[in-house]
Amino acid sequence: MDIKINLGKRVKELRLFKGYSQEAFAHECGLDRTYIASVENGKRNVSIENIEKIASACQLSLQEFFNSELFSGN
Amino acid sequence: MDIKINLGKRVKELRLFKGYSQEAFAHECGLDRTYIASVENGKRNVSIENIEKIASACQLSLQEFFNSELFSGN
Repeated sequence: MDIKINLGKRVKELRLFKGYSQEAFAHECGLDRTYIASVENGKRNVSIENIEKIASACQLSLQEFFNSELFSGN
Repeated sequence: MDIKINLGKRVKELRLFKGYSQEAFAHECGLDRTYIASVENGKRNVSIENIEKIASACQLSLQEFFNSELFSGN
């Protein structure tokens, strides 16, 4: 598995759970819509600061963001 | 709080728990010793791929890596 792919899946599922469009979500995160799109597509090696922005826009801690089966493999 | 600081604390506590020197740990991670040192000092905006390398060297999933009070704040 590619961690970038699973990170993208997590971002997309959280965004959709919150009912955000990519554009509205990007605005909440303080990031660009095209950047969020490429993250969701598993194309970005996202930094911890941007992961925190994304988690924060979902009202989640980083602990909660990574508390997913997507990140449970060794 | 600066997320880079807390990430560095987590890396250092895990490395010491495993009984690794920075040099041995860096080798396990496939990263440079000076890079690990700057991560531990909270100076690096580490990418998800490198966090995965660090977690993997500790035999932890990303879920386990982030399962810490250091990452429980919103």
